[in-house]
Amino acid sequence: MTDRAPEVEAFDAVDLIRTKRDRGELSTAEIDWLVDAYTRGYVGDEQMSAMTMAIFLNGMTRREIKDLTLAMIASGERMDFAGLGKPTADKHSTGGVGDKITLPLMPLVATFGVAVPQLSGRGLGHTGGTLDKLESIPGWRANLSNEEMLAQLRNEGGVICAAGSGLAPADGKLYALRDITGTVEAIPLIASSIMSKKIAEGTGALVLDVKFGSGAFLKDIERSRELARTMVELGRDAGVATSALLTDMNIPLGLAIGNANEVRESVEVLAGGGPADIVELTVALAREMLALAGRPDEDVEAALKDGRAMDKWREVIRAQGGDPDAALPVAKETHTVVADQDGVLVEQQALPFGIAAWRLGAGRARKQDPVQHAAGIDLHAKPGDEVRAGQPLFTLSADEPARFERALEALEGAYRIAAPGTAYERGPLIADRIA
Amino acid sequence: MTDRAPEVEAFDAVDLIRTKRDRGELSTAEIDWLVDAYTRGYVGDEQMSAMTMAIFLNGMTRREIKDLTLAMIASGERMDFAGLGKPTADKHSTGGVGDKITLPLMPLVATFGVAVPQLSGRGLGHTGGTLDKLESIPGWRANLSNEEMLAQLRNEGGVICAAGSGLAPADGKLYALRDITGTVEAIPLIASSIMSKKIAEGTGALVLDVKFGSGAFLKDIERSRELARTMVELGRDAGVATSALLTDMNIPLGLAIGNANEVRESVEVLAGGGPADIVELTVALAREMLALAGRPDEDVEAALKDGRAMDKWREVIRAQGGDPDAALPVAKETHTVVADQDGVLVEQQALPFGIAAWRLGAGRARKQDPVQHAAGIDLHAKPGDEVRAGQPLFTLSADEPARFERALEALEGAYRIAAPGTAYERGPLIADRIA
Repeated sequence: MTDRAPEVEAFDAVDLIRTKRDRGELSTAEIDWLVDAYTRGYVGDEQMSAMTMAIFLNGMTRREIKDLTLAMIASGERMDFAGLGKPTADKHSTGGVGDKITLPLMPLVATFGVAVPQLSGRGLGHTGGTLDKLESIPGWRANLSNEEMLAQLRNEGGVICAAGSGLAPADGKLYALRDITGTVEAIPLIASSIMSKKIAEGTGALVLDVKFGSGAFLKDIERSRELARTMVELGRDAGVATSALLTDMNIPLGLAIGNANEVRESVEVLAGGGPADIVELTVALAREMLALAGRPDEDVEAALKDGRAMDKWREVIRAQGGDPDAALPVAKETHTVVADQDGVLVEQQALPFGIAAWRLGAGRARKQDPVQHAAGIDLHAKPGDEVRAGQPLFTLSADEPARFERALEALEGAYRIAAPGTAYERGPLIADRIA
Repeated sequence: MTDRAPEVEAFDAVDLIRTKRDRGELSTAEIDWLVDAYTRGYVGDEQMSAMTMAIFLNGMTRREIKDLTLAMIASGERMDFAGLGKPTADKHSTGGVGDKITLPLMPLVATFGVAVPQLSGRGLGHTGGTLDKLESIPGWRANLSNEEMLAQLRNEGGVICAAGSGLAPADGKLYALRDITGTVEAIPLIASSIMSKKIAEGTGALVLDVKFGSGAFLKDIERSRELARTMVELGRDAGVATSALLTDMNIPLGLAIGNANEVRESVEVLAGGGPADIVELTVALAREMLALAGRPDEDVEAALKDGRAMDKWREVIRAQGGDPDAALPVAKETHTVVADQDGVLVEQQALPFGIAAWRLGAGRARKQDPVQHAAGIDLHAKPGDEVRAGQPLFTLSADEPARFERALEALEGAYRIAAPGTAYERGPLIADRIA
């Protein structure tokens, strides 16, 4: 029984919280009002966090999730790439350890005349951020105006830049709140957060890389599948050609975890080399993007082998002020961990390696902290590899040696060498496709 | 995976929220830290509201509730009445419509030499506040220093005053938060809120009047019973002799709902008259308090009939600056609703009558609002009474006639007259005793 300013506001926040708390369904009008009132500051953070916890524990129907997504889109501006005269395709990953796929993927797809408006974020927690990685390239800048972004899409055909605060501002505010109130991992909230930004961004096609496993924020493949299905539906309802790959994040992707070292590894892939898992996922995602954009038959691998993707990379890095030939930063201190026995590496858990890289300085604990671009981990062996006692397993890099201790603590029990000859079998990197 | 200032703080709020979110149990150390960090402002309102929603939906163990209560007590000062040289007993009601029992009860119990330190609150929402009611007596003041309160307990043997902000300040902060985030009705939070203040207050005995029914904030008698049991245990664990009565709040208590009119009705009871339900509950609660304080055999009813309780009332009102003989405020406007047919009044729902009185100005929508002491409702018939067409059913009083419309809206369908001769049976006012 509340009676707060009924003449001015259509609903009362406490009534809506109670509805969701008691497992009720919020109407379209209620969700529209809630998101708008929260954006205006009429509904407070403390009320919205009670609501998000109620959503976390009691869920939302598909209709509610769709309404939440649309309300967050309506909270800001909406871009439109119709004037470009070419198809657009974007990719979103739910985040993983060593996930630098955006870096080789964007130029690779742009090579085929499909424009890639890759609006990206910064890292918070144990998964890195694409912008943080690219900022290790001297001169490269993440912040472009809408006009600069459109010009680059028209001229170079691809761009990776910071999402302007004008897209789905309600989501920005809500995500920051969820991060400090333990409600990040709720499927309705993740799905609406990701899709509100991507739909507002105006991409014509969208491929979702939905991670599962110990290094993903949804550990369980079935919950990842549910998230993927929810997002694919939201995209389609909004007229965006959308599909999703469910990919394994139990072990780190590639050999580099950090920022500058992940750029190095990406450049290797663009040069036709690089670790097999990075190449596999880059090629699969590029095929999805091209197919959704109406180009299902392109020879993606050839563009990696023959230098076209590398040329595009250099072009787009230069367009954003970066020097693709400049030396990347190198850490002041390194610490290498070696195998203590002969055998087979059978375990390399993504989550502790992500936390260790974060503690080395590759990630940030608070939004306002800087990242240390040269900090991170280089893996010298991957699960399934045979190793000899004394052989390097991985190298930690940091600017301050004091950081090694806490990083090594995170890695205790995170990798394991079994007796020589032990069989190691891993499930497929790409477990499923949802379309 | 959070890493916020681990050098300074023992725990991370997000980890604790996640524990409760995932149906885990918080340790004693975690609860101590949480309450302390929230009181200090290190844990924010938005974090605490996510936590309270998780507690609302996932519950707390008895051990957690006890730890939460103790942590809230430890957030402030603790009073001690040992120096008084006489037993102390207090009463707490979970709140109802027309519940003015504290007013006759305090002087009645004090008559028998048991000191009554009745620290009370103000109304928020549809249930009134004892202090608001007493403030309709010209000159009476609610705010006493601890020294004044102790002196009055020593000299007059009873006091009704505002709880100082020094008692369980964490509870004050948390209650204000729960009120705006839809988490008032959680048993662990209600029990710890009430009992932390009462235990910190230092009373030797405590009787709880736990309401159930449509006008109570817990509608269901079984949930009220659970709340009563939880609080009785908390009191005993803390060395306070505690018992509880489960009482019916489906219809208003007595005939007056408001402030000045509730004082008038209380004075009638102290004069040996008054409505039967008010007398029944006052006497029952007085017996409980006296028994817990070691005086089980006092003739409580005699003290109402022979004027002793009235003399004590006049004494304590005067001690707090009030004039027991002064005229109480009268409303500028009244509106009387009459029966539209002959028959038996079979329905008079407490909640809408409470809301109507609130809308007339007897209660406040926001903490800072004043109440209008003369506003309220006087009932002229109670369920079971036979009425004739045209006979007054109740009178609304307000200072502004514009308030009648919204009050009458609240009362639509809230009362009902059945055909003459219809049998009406009500359950007992006092449904159970928990000790």
